Amino acid sequence: MALVGGGSGSFIGRVHATAAVLDNRAALVAGALSSNPERAKASAPDYDIPEARAYGSVAEMLEKENALPADQRIDFVSVATPNFTHFEIAKAAVEAGFNVICDKPMTFDLAQAEDLLKVVEGSDSVFAVSHNYTGYPLVRQARQMIKDGLLGEINAVRVQYIQGWLRSKLEDTDSKQAGWRTDPKKSGAAGCFGDIATHAYNLGRYMTGLLPEEISCHLKTFVEGRLLDDYGTAIVKFENGALGTVTASQISHGRENDLSIEIDGTKGSLQWRQENPNEMIVRANGEPHKIYTRDPNAPFTNEMGAAACRLPSGHPEAFFEAFANVYRASYDAMAARALGQSFEKKDTVYPNVYDGVEGMYFIQQCVASSQEGGAWLPMKHPAARR
Amino acid sequence: MALVGGGSGSFIGRVHATAAVLDNRAALVAGALSSNPERAKASAPDYDIPEARAYGSVAEMLEKENALPADQRIDFVSVATPNFTHFEIAKAAVEAGFNVICDKPMTFDLAQAEDLLKVVEGSDSVFAVSHNYTGYPLVRQARQMIKDGLLGEINAVRVQYIQGWLRSKLEDTDSKQAGWRTDPKKSGAAGCFGDIATHAYNLGRYMTGLLPEEISCHLKTFVEGRLLDDYGTAIVKFENGALGTVTASQISHGRENDLSIEIDGTKGSLQWRQENPNEMIVRANGEPHKIYTRDPNAPFTNEMGAAACRLPSGHPEAFFEAFANVYRASYDAMAARALGQSFEKKDTVYPNVYDGVEGMYFIQQCVASSQEGGAWLPMKHPAARR
Amino acid sequence: MALVGGGSGSFIGRVHATAAVLDNRAALVAGALSSNPERAKASAPDYDIPEARAYGSVAEMLEKENALPADQRIDFVSVATPNFTHFEIAKAAVEAGFNVICDKPMTFDLAQAEDLLKVVEGSDSVFAVSHNYTGYPLVRQARQMIKDGLLGEINAVRVQYIQGWLRSKLEDTDSKQAGWRTDPKKSGAAGCFGDIATHAYNLGRYMTGLLPEEISCHLKTFVEGRLLDDYGTAIVKFENGALGTVTASQISHGRENDLSIEIDGTKGSLQWRQENPNEMIVRANGEPHKIYTRDPNAPFTNEMGAAACRLPSGHPEAFFEAFANVYRASYDAMAARALGQSFEKKDTVYPNVYDGVEGMYFIQQCVASSQEGGAWLPMKHPAARR
Amino acid sequence: MALVGGGSGSFIGRVHATAAVLDNRAALVAGALSSNPERAKASAPDYDIPEARAYGSVAEMLEKENALPADQRIDFVSVATPNFTHFEIAKAAVEAGFNVICDKPMTFDLAQAEDLLKVVEGSDSVFAVSHNYTGYPLVRQARQMIKDGLLGEINAVRVQYIQGWLRSKLEDTDSKQAGWRTDPKKSGAAGCFGDIATHAYNLGRYMTGLLPEEISCHLKTFVEGRLLDDYGTAIVKFENGALGTVTASQISHGRENDLSIEIDGTKGSLQWRQENPNEMIVRANGEPHKIYTRDPNAPFTNEMGAAACRLPSGHPEAFFEAFANVYRASYDAMAARALGQSFEKKDTVYPNVYDGVEGMYFIQQCVASSQEGGAWLPMKHPAARR
Repeated sequence: MALVGGGSGSFIGRVHATAAVLDNRAALVAGALSSNPERAKASAPDYDIPEARAYGSVAEMLEKENALPADQRIDFVSVATPNFTHFEIAKAAVEAGFNVICDKPMTFDLAQAEDLLKVVEGSDSVFAVSHNYTGYPLVRQARQMIKDGLLGEINAVRVQYIQGWLRSKLEDTDSKQAGWRTDPKKSGAAGCFGDIATHAYNLGRYMTGLLPEEISCHLKTFVEGRLLDDYGTAIVKFENGALGTVTASQISHGRENDLSIEIDGTKGSLQWRQENPNEMIVRANGEPHKIYTRDPNAPFTNEMGAAACRLPSGHPEAFFEAFANVYRASYDAMAARALGQSFEKKDTVYPNVYDGVEGMYFIQQCVASSQEGGAWLPMKHPAARR
Repeated sequence: MALVGGGSGSFIGRVHATAAVLDNRAALVAGALSSNPERAKASAPDYDIPEARAYGSVAEMLEKENALPADQRIDFVSVATPNFTHFEIAKAAVEAGFNVICDKPMTFDLAQAEDLLKVVEGSDSVFAVSHNYTGYPLVRQARQMIKDGLLGEINAVRVQYIQGWLRSKLEDTDSKQAGWRTDPKKSGAAGCFGDIATHAYNLGRYMTGLLPEEISCHLKTFVEGRLLDDYGTAIVKFENGALGTVTASQISHGRENDLSIEIDGTKGSLQWRQENPNEMIVRANGEPHKIYTRDPNAPFTNEMGAAACRLPSGHPEAFFEAFANVYRASYDAMAARALGQSFEKKDTVYPNVYDGVEGMYFIQQCVASSQEGGAWLPMKHPAARR
Repeated sequence: MALVGGGSGSFIGRVHATAAVLDNRAALVAGALSSNPERAKASAPDYDIPEARAYGSVAEMLEKENALPADQRIDFVSVATPNFTHFEIAKAAVEAGFNVICDKPMTFDLAQAEDLLKVVEGSDSVFAVSHNYTGYPLVRQARQMIKDGLLGEINAVRVQYIQGWLRSKLEDTDSKQAGWRTDPKKSGAAGCFGDIATHAYNLGRYMTGLLPEEISCHLKTFVEGRLLDDYGTAIVKFENGALGTVTASQISHGRENDLSIEIDGTKGSLQWRQENPNEMIVRANGEPHKIYTRDPNAPFTNEMGAAACRLPSGHPEAFFEAFANVYRASYDAMAARALGQSFEKKDTVYPNVYDGVEGMYFIQQCVASSQEGGAWLPMKHPAARR
Repeated sequence: MALVGGGSGSFIGRVHATAAVLDNRAALVAGALSSNPERAKASAPDYDIPEARAYGSVAEMLEKENALPADQRIDFVSVATPNFTHFEIAKAAVEAGFNVICDKPMTFDLAQAEDLLKVVEGSDSVFAVSHNYTGYPLVRQARQMIKDGLLGEINAVRVQYIQGWLRSKLEDTDSKQAGWRTDPKKSGAAGCFGDIATHAYNLGRYMTGLLPEEISCHLKTFVEGRLLDDYGTAIVKFENGALGTVTASQISHGRENDLSIEIDGTKGSLQWRQENPNEMIVRANGEPHKIYTRDPNAPFTNEMGAAACRLPSGHPEAFFEAFANVYRASYDAMAARALGQSFEKKDTVYPNVYDGVEGMYFIQQCVASSQEGGAWLPMKHPAARR
């Protein structure tokens, strides 16, 4: 494994590095940790990356790694850099034959995403996008429950992703995180909606499997002088007639990372919240509300849910473990590839390049709809995972 | 006090009767409990209403009560009938000189509401609309906190009102409640949005004081064959630039009466939920989240909050007490009127006829917007409480 | 109905007055509201008690009420005075032929309680003790579930009652509440354990029906100079081998009225908390945790639970309603008595004189055990409700 | 790092292996994974332990590792075997010069613990005991808050540790976990109290720093035929007059791993629960309840709390991370030792051999007290961490 990004001040680089090795199925042995070659090399000891494999650029890394014997070179590249650089790095890595785990949103804009999709489809590479919230065991449990029809036909999905850290104009301080995330040249067309509403939208899609048809969106920038949206709400019409809402905020005082979802079906409903991820409430009229806990050994836990657990119930698992589950699922595919076996590329347990494309389409259409006063725009992308 | 409605099968009639007398400031002494004269009289003993004052019709009641000496006759009429009858009853009661507590939504349509407003404005009557959720102590505490500027400028309001009782087609059974509420001839232009989204909208307005400008709405009917909406979401642009969302459902399995609100201001945010009404979470970046409990004696409790309490903290108060607080506030005005004193008519603690008009406008514009694909329609009504 | 106690500064008098009439099955028409005759009369208007029936003393009240025609006189007396006066008032009221609702703890000491028991047993009076927490619908639901064997054999009961209001030496201020409750001459042998641990102990007994055998207790006084205990924990051995723990505190900062209980049976366990009384968690190995809500219409709600509800689920009920349920159950007995019918005196839905005796025995044995370093003392009282 | 124990069917071995390397400060390179030499070697690939260092016995491991050059041999041994084997393994490892992370309870009985203490004191080895719940960031935050006097003098500590997995006689099935834990020859004198009450007791001691004086305990075995206790409650008198209660259960249906603590001080109180570890409630009379979240960047987070975090607030951390914090703290000491620097041995951030001794004393005195009907026995051990 090689890490791109993750130099000092990075949050997500460290998360990738920790999650990737949590199950001892990978080792971080190489990296291009910063776009600044000197800083890239200086950061290597933080990750125990040997000096020889601390590269000054991605190009150098790909070239030199490919020059190593097959059993010594890296299998995959984790891309944990600001959005505007994802495309070039991921594309190069795939073209160099490596598997890729790419942070979200997948690219800077939809055009890049569609290009990248072609590159990936033309390759044998495993390509995962780190919509890490799909890795929570109860999210996967819910996904399978819905697939199995336990909630009946899905009518409504409400997703909220509420944060407060950008309540003040943090981009005017030395916050590296705030800096690039609010900069349209680095983050892309959307701020809040690119950074977190994409997660929320993806979560609803992943759990319900509903296919979108049209979208209407309203974005706001509440912090004066900010260049991108910091709040917004989108309404989604799904093909089956269901109605979805996605609300995201970066300006809600004291709110931390409050991603939550409610799903209503004709046979049951459910509710889950990322900040308390080991519980999910499942309801049906006339029955007591049921708290499903993350319990790998319980009769009510399905295969998807159980496979995502590492600990018995009551021993809480959390963010790192969920993130690691995205990695773990992609490793199965990488292993298959390494053995020359075929492996599923579209309907994967891990979020993939198709989800990445749809995420970029979501951003594009939300921004466009908002500019047109909430006009309904198409949301069916031909590449969307069905 | 006289009750109109409340005959067998009624839910809200009993609630009015209980709430009105909770503080021993009124007594239920007369009634026209059903539109069916015989049933009206037969229901009287359920409320300890003496036979002589168990009237067969509202007209009879108003006439006979007015014929009684002033110190024996009723002071006010509580209207707890299906929506389509509110207007006629309330109008007659006001014209007969009585005060009125009217259930919500105030009338069948906006035109009636505007007519009623004129009648009320031309009278001395105290007129309250039972948006009972405004009676919760922590709702009033929040209202004053916001008025006092403790949350700063309000940017966003998210209200949800989620129920599940109409998940099946209950109107095809003998459910009286479901029957009229899903019947456009009795309920009005909206189902779910008339019955509960009006509460949710009113709660946001009451707590924040924000003035609406435009609204866009999407209504759905998920239960096949139902004649009115049973789900929907509306987006509100407020005059100050704030964005509001109102989502209401009657088809969410196992959800009971889950009205909740989140408010984001530039200085703080808050969160409250009707099903757990004795707690409110107030947050500000950099501070621990604060749980404000309903505590009449705490230094952090303001005058509005404390005045709405009957019990010390930890001794939970709930639905009846909140409902009774709407009555209690209106009694102060009635007492002033009885003493020939002036009293505030627009900016009242209790929801009033202006709120009733705005509620009907909300319903009308939501239905119209939804029919036009979510078009933005004006939401500034000249009569709205400012 | 007549109220004894409840003059200015009283908390529980107002609660009795409100709860007693909540269902419109009683009216407060007489009272001896203070031990000070002048204050007694002065307080009468607060309760709408007519001057003629605002008595200066209990003796006067009982005499004059008995002189009224049977259909005009009161049916029962509610005793809401400090503990040391309960016995004399309750005894006199019973001897005068009235029914009694007596606040807890029932008397000043066990000897008084045993005397009072004889008086009640020698009369036809209905006698209830206001262990109001037994009135919560879910408490009664749990009681019947356990009686019905749904939790199997009960092994363990853990009850906590945690308050913080006596953290400082409030008895040195002008707090009437704190004054008598911490005064051994007025409160009795125990402070915290008399005031609230009795509730906690009673709740465990009421819900489980387990019969106590022995008790060991440790009391503490943490506030310097206080004359009675303000913290303690007791361990109870039940006849069937179950182990119970009762912990009570008045000195836990910020804790309001946090009575909670956990019960473990061989087939299931449950958990309930007074501050959030509309929910109860029921668990069994291998099943999702179940939240039973207070829902009069749900299939899982039993007869006892449903009978204690006034509102549909999601419309929270709370302290007043629970308190009123103790009254309501006693009214059924009073009505039977008035009609000359027989009625159950020992195994009643409402807490009764037998529970009152056991409560006083609990206090006596706890204090004695604590003085002997936690010695095991007998806890089987011959009069205990079986 | 070498792992002892952790062969198939083990739960805690895998946890040690994961936690130890979470921060990339150690690598698992050797092991004696089972007492059965064949199984020991067969399990090695599960942990990526090279065949050459997959030893058939601890003795072999210690000898062969010591024969390796210093820069290649292991630094420490993690002991994750059943209780009755801890002593011999840990002693041998220390005597061989290695550092040790030993699972709890530290030994089979107190005598072994005291022996081991001498061995450790006579060595330079870092010795940690995996009371992993002390590793939660908010536990450490609370510890420092109390040390800093923010809660004032501590009066009361209530700890509960409630599980349900041994509700049935699982030891009669092929459950390896249940088998040794309920076997007095393998587990020691106590079952539930050895396995989990020791954690609960340790947590109270760790957070408050209170020194115990006497203990009284009542143990129960509710599952017929079980050889050790599966339920119990202990009362602790602390030197400063505070009262503590420790209740533990393995027979509470549906309860998972519910360790919770409440602490009352003269200036404030707090409450924390392991199953929801990213929140702690801090209360003071007259103030809103405060939810402290695990937030490394918040002004209210102290040094101890912040140092234990890996992720920003709202990105939940859980069991593995807490466990890893015990390792992390011990690594600092190991690093100091390796550099020949002095390091604190008694008042350490990680639970140490002194805590291990006190844990064994706790078990011994609880069992003895229970056998004597709850007699008060001394609980001051000369070796206890002060």
